[in-house]
Amino acid sequence: MTHPLDTALHLQPAGDDRFDGATSAAYANMIGPFGGTTAAVALQAVLQHPARQGEPVALTVNYAAALADGPFTVQARPVRTNRSTQHWLVQIEQPGGVVLTATAVLAVRRATWSACDLQPPAGVPAADAIPPAPTAARMAWVQRYDMRFVEGGVPLALDGAEQPHARSRLWLRDEPPRPLDFPALTALCDAFFPRIYLRRRALVPIGTVSLTAYFHADAALLAQQGSGHVLADVRGLSYRNGYFDQSAELWSASGELLATTTQVVYYRE
Amino acid sequence: MTHPLDTALHLQPAGDDRFDGATSAAYANMIGPFGGTTAAVALQAVLQHPARQGEPVALTVNYAAALADGPFTVQARPVRTNRSTQHWLVQIEQPGGVVLTATAVLAVRRATWSACDLQPPAGVPAADAIPPAPTAARMAWVQRYDMRFVEGGVPLALDGAEQPHARSRLWLRDEPPRPLDFPALTALCDAFFPRIYLRRRALVPIGTVSLTAYFHADAALLAQQGSGHVLADVRGLSYRNGYFDQSAELWSASGELLATTTQVVYYRE
Repeated sequence: MTHPLDTALHLQPAGDDRFDGATSAAYANMIGPFGGTTAAVALQAVLQHPARQGEPVALTVNYAAALADGPFTVQARPVRTNRSTQHWLVQIEQPGGVVLTATAVLAVRRATWSACDLQPPAGVPAADAIPPAPTAARMAWVQRYDMRFVEGGVPLALDGAEQPHARSRLWLRDEPPRPLDFPALTALCDAFFPRIYLRRRALVPIGTVSLTAYFHADAALLAQQGSGHVLADVRGLSYRNGYFDQSAELWSASGELLATTTQVVYYRE
Repeated sequence: MTHPLDTALHLQPAGDDRFDGATSAAYANMIGPFGGTTAAVALQAVLQHPARQGEPVALTVNYAAALADGPFTVQARPVRTNRSTQHWLVQIEQPGGVVLTATAVLAVRRATWSACDLQPPAGVPAADAIPPAPTAARMAWVQRYDMRFVEGGVPLALDGAEQPHARSRLWLRDEPPRPLDFPALTALCDAFFPRIYLRRRALVPIGTVSLTAYFHADAALLAQQGSGHVLADVRGLSYRNGYFDQSAELWSASGELLATTTQVVYYRE
């Protein structure tokens, strides 16, 4: 049986630098599909392009318009290939125009001196020790994730009582479980509820406008994760006149940093 | 007298979506120009494009190849204009090919509920109370900045003795002073010494591959800064097999968050 994420990621080659895809009801959001899946599709086009060299190091996706449910075309073009790095431009188009722009940097990595200045979260209960957040009544895409909150779940009381911060720590993985790879990790980078929901305890209208992910894991490290949970820390930074940003880290269960990510989000009111 | 940054930012319209510019000796780096200036040039092309609508919210620049000293062409193309947001693709080209790709999101902001979860640095001596870091013997671009380190200056002893982190806090402004605007703020986002220099106390070969800036300030808030110093906090996150990332915040002297920024940097060895 095909995993729903693989269905959502399925792209059919459609000529030079072009691929045909379609949104997936399994990842439906309030309007159109979950943005994490769309970001993963942009990366997937690069990864399955015949000119691809290396593994993703950096990805930025800009959500130019709400995707309509249905088919889309991805254009993925290598604009510069160096000895060890490769730079890509990606666009997703629908009949109404460009709905997403993206840039990706791929690299052939070599073993070097390595270190991590960030401390992995300590004293965190194992994923198995925390019940998954109930998703039955939630949007389709939320049901595609197993989320286990150590702290900072979506507040049950959306009473508009502001909280002093918007931090969450959670275990998360695809549901059903699926081996982690770069597209799945990309989608996880967008699987945090918008920080303003927690900060204001209110569901104000929002939409991510730009998301950046830096991949610290290479394919070998990702393969070691299998289909287990990753541990994420996420926080809000600043909310000002219609736009806020949030940043997050995704860790392996054994304390290796897999990715860092930031995004800026439009909000109304 | 024209400020050297304005000389570096000078772009001559050269037909549809195209502008001619040239690198500036005043911002020379070890090889080619300072990347902060190049990022600022990418944004400048958007800002002076006749179709421009709104102010920058997000900018990502990818350094695809080292710029050669000399002329370049900037292509800046609005790929989607919505009611309140506008999405741009930018490329800088030289005879050898594409040297930079960028995406920018502009927005017409409205006054909304606003808040900042990050705490502005507290107990910091005023810029006037700290002597500027000596720059006379440094690369040209370093001489274009007045940097006053509260902590985390470049170590005087590059003895290879690893430090446990790579944090800096500093006041900085253009030198000579120049009123802050979006291109200048963009360049400031790249004006931090690569964290690996501090972390390893060694000058290993490096090159930024991707930089993202989120602008929290609008033009009115920037105008209030005049040509004073901004206060920056910057840190390294993770260094792994040839790539590390660093993140930073830039604050006004009165404690308003002007921008947040991240970048991923290639390093050798």
